[in-house]
Amino acid sequence: MSETLDSAVQTYIRQHRAAFLEELTRWLRIPSVSAQPEHAEDVRRSADWLAGALKETGFPVVEVWDTPGAPAVFAEWPAEEPDAPVVLVYGHHDVQPAAREDGWDTDPFEPVVKDGRLYARGAADDKGQVFFHTLGVRAHLAATGRTSPAVHLKLLVEGEEESGSPHFRALVEERAERLAADAVIVSDTGMWSEDTPTVCTGMRGVAEFEVRLHGPDQDIHSGSFGGAVPNPATAVARLVAALHDEDGRVAVPGFYDGVVELTERERALFAELPFDEERWLRTAKSHAASGEAGYTTLERIWARPTAEVNGIGGGYQGVGGKTIVPSSAMVKLTFRLVAGQDPERIERLVRAWVAERVPAGIRHEVHFGGATRPCLTPLDHPALQSLARAMGRAFRQPVRFTREGGSGPAADLQEVLGAPVLFLGISVPSDGWHAPNEKVELDLLVKGVETAAYLWGDLAEGLRDAR
Amino acid sequence: MSETLDSAVQTYIRQHRAAFLEELTRWLRIPSVSAQPEHAEDVRRSADWLAGALKETGFPVVEVWDTPGAPAVFAEWPAEEPDAPVVLVYGHHDVQPAAREDGWDTDPFEPVVKDGRLYARGAADDKGQVFFHTLGVRAHLAATGRTSPAVHLKLLVEGEEESGSPHFRALVEERAERLAADAVIVSDTGMWSEDTPTVCTGMRGVAEFEVRLHGPDQDIHSGSFGGAVPNPATAVARLVAALHDEDGRVAVPGFYDGVVELTERERALFAELPFDEERWLRTAKSHAASGEAGYTTLERIWARPTAEVNGIGGGYQGVGGKTIVPSSAMVKLTFRLVAGQDPERIERLVRAWVAERVPAGIRHEVHFGGATRPCLTPLDHPALQSLARAMGRAFRQPVRFTREGGSGPAADLQEVLGAPVLFLGISVPSDGWHAPNEKVELDLLVKGVETAAYLWGDLAEGLRDAR
Repeated sequence: MSETLDSAVQTYIRQHRAAFLEELTRWLRIPSVSAQPEHAEDVRRSADWLAGALKETGFPVVEVWDTPGAPAVFAEWPAEEPDAPVVLVYGHHDVQPAAREDGWDTDPFEPVVKDGRLYARGAADDKGQVFFHTLGVRAHLAATGRTSPAVHLKLLVEGEEESGSPHFRALVEERAERLAADAVIVSDTGMWSEDTPTVCTGMRGVAEFEVRLHGPDQDIHSGSFGGAVPNPATAVARLVAALHDEDGRVAVPGFYDGVVELTERERALFAELPFDEERWLRTAKSHAASGEAGYTTLERIWARPTAEVNGIGGGYQGVGGKTIVPSSAMVKLTFRLVAGQDPERIERLVRAWVAERVPAGIRHEVHFGGATRPCLTPLDHPALQSLARAMGRAFRQPVRFTREGGSGPAADLQEVLGAPVLFLGISVPSDGWHAPNEKVELDLLVKGVETAAYLWGDLAEGLRDAR
Repeated sequence: MSETLDSAVQTYIRQHRAAFLEELTRWLRIPSVSAQPEHAEDVRRSADWLAGALKETGFPVVEVWDTPGAPAVFAEWPAEEPDAPVVLVYGHHDVQPAAREDGWDTDPFEPVVKDGRLYARGAADDKGQVFFHTLGVRAHLAATGRTSPAVHLKLLVEGEEESGSPHFRALVEERAERLAADAVIVSDTGMWSEDTPTVCTGMRGVAEFEVRLHGPDQDIHSGSFGGAVPNPATAVARLVAALHDEDGRVAVPGFYDGVVELTERERALFAELPFDEERWLRTAKSHAASGEAGYTTLERIWARPTAEVNGIGGGYQGVGGKTIVPSSAMVKLTFRLVAGQDPERIERLVRAWVAERVPAGIRHEVHFGGATRPCLTPLDHPALQSLARAMGRAFRQPVRFTREGGSGPAADLQEVLGAPVLFLGISVPSDGWHAPNEKVELDLLVKGVETAAYLWGDLAEGLRDAR
């Protein structure tokens, strides 16, 4: 890493920062809310606008890809070197719904800069973090004197992420050849805090289930029949109670088979993070930390598989009482998965576990609600090291490592393209994703530009080493 | 029991049966639905009509008692003997809602006789079973040549039973002196079957609870926080799962203290009943019999205390999934109680049990939804023996004994008046209480008249013996 190069990157960014922000502001004015049908045209407008901006940036190939839902934008900028590694950047151009009356201080689609922050729906999630790649790649070219990036650069910016990416997997499978890459950079996450830049090394997967138990053919009188027939609400409760053992471990037999355990080094790195459990509990709006014995809170949410009840219901839930044995009861469960766990196998295990535990006289149904696979890039992967170095240069300090407890379509990219997934995010927890007054810190946004500017050169080497 | 007397009773009933049914039909035409405010006037009309009919029967004292809700009817016919035992008959003149479109073959308030059955809302529950006392007492007088009943006869016919008797307890407490009795005859139940006349010896009580558990201050993301904070839906399920032990016994410590156990004689008598479990399961619309180990189905529903989940709920219950840790969850529980169990004590036990089991980070509330006490008259009580004898004479066969698993205001009479409660009912399970096409078997209705005609002489002796 050269000081001259860094200085050239910083100078170029300083010169173009104002124009970059002006452009981003234009994009943020388009209310590309994918969940609201009345904004379908806006989502398309957002795709077209982005396609135009990417052409202007210099991408020789820019295409809007239609899907049965909202369109995605694809762009490609081959390196001059034919053997250059291929990198695919992933992001999305759709945004969460937002309305002034939800608690916004200003119009969510009329961006405002205040105290070094840019307020608008999509400022952080995800338009800001997609857009920093435009100035990033230009700064990379300007500072290196190259006419094309050091990697064969591809961008895929989908339009349905905030609606659960219903057509994303199919799109990636269909266009797998065009999307083929040696590494995927997901540009849709965050970092620990303003003072603690971090790189995320993986996301948990998730498998969703709904279990329905059927007892009597209709609600029956608990005075006449109670105590002498099986009660599906009791049965569903027993199922849930049996889901964890006394150590808070998931009790479905075989659940932990194949789980990639945390390494001692990763545990040590997590432990170095300035984690304040009291403060975390306030964020979680919770009143105690509890979970799998032998693991810290960060390990529990980032690196351990879990089983969680999302909803439970059966019988009478209105005001007052109703003396019935309910006819049916249900529970909605999600299992968070970590590397080494296969959703299809988990589905089989859960089905068998439920079937074995349902008592006589109760009929059961298990609905598998779909799954997202986990993804994880080992700490010592050269591409991950390249990303950490680039980010460290931008932030003038070493970066640390985190993981993400949630799940996302990134795993589809990892699986279909067979490439490691890296997460480059400069958003911070206070940015208010999905909340009123979403914002991005302008200084951090520029660090994102700078990271992207350093990344391609370093990554080209790192990925060549990995071959 | 004299054959001459029996024959005189039967003759009298035969002569007046047609007029009796005609009168009952008039009463059944009044849609005295206490649960529907638009029928408030009809409930009052029903009370006034009954008051008139009781006057015509010969009761020297007939009063309509107002309550904050629907009126009750009180009637009194003192015996000539000043030391005659006092008997209070309980019933109700209000009925369940009914509409042709609920599945009735004929208008529910236009009585129809077909194949020896009288179809109408209230035919069995409870107008028919109240009204048989009018012809019953007249037959008693005609056959014995008395001018007043052999017992000091009182009738209390409430107007809110189908609405949960909200003002009944207060009414009974307020009028306790007027209602004072040596025995209470509840004329609002049924018997085993047409072929198996039975006397019910007690009802279970019930205590209602709602337990609410509060975890995070709002629903939180299960990817970000799941597995590291306590989940109230899981906690409520564990509470329910812990409610019973492996033998199906209620696991709340102290719950069984003081329970009046079934005697060997009662168990033997229950076992003699022609109980068909397959048929019972069809009635229960259930697919297995299960419950407290060591007891039969009849024992479980009649004579054993239970804990039942009436409703459970928490988190997301809509279509599809929602990846949250729910903010709260609740369960509605009813405990059926048997003689020897005190609802206030049960409330204390349940509160302590819940408090002990709720995990750190979960706040709990226990709402006590009120209770009805259990009641039980020992098999060898002289009044019970008198009732069994009178019914045996009417049915020309020995009667057997049952209990009732449900709960009712009868227990208030037992408690406030300090008198044993006896159940005289001729309705059969097929009569369709609360269902479309409610009916009463005319032959059984007349057996009710006949039982009432024999009862007062026998009971006068039985209760004198019991003093």
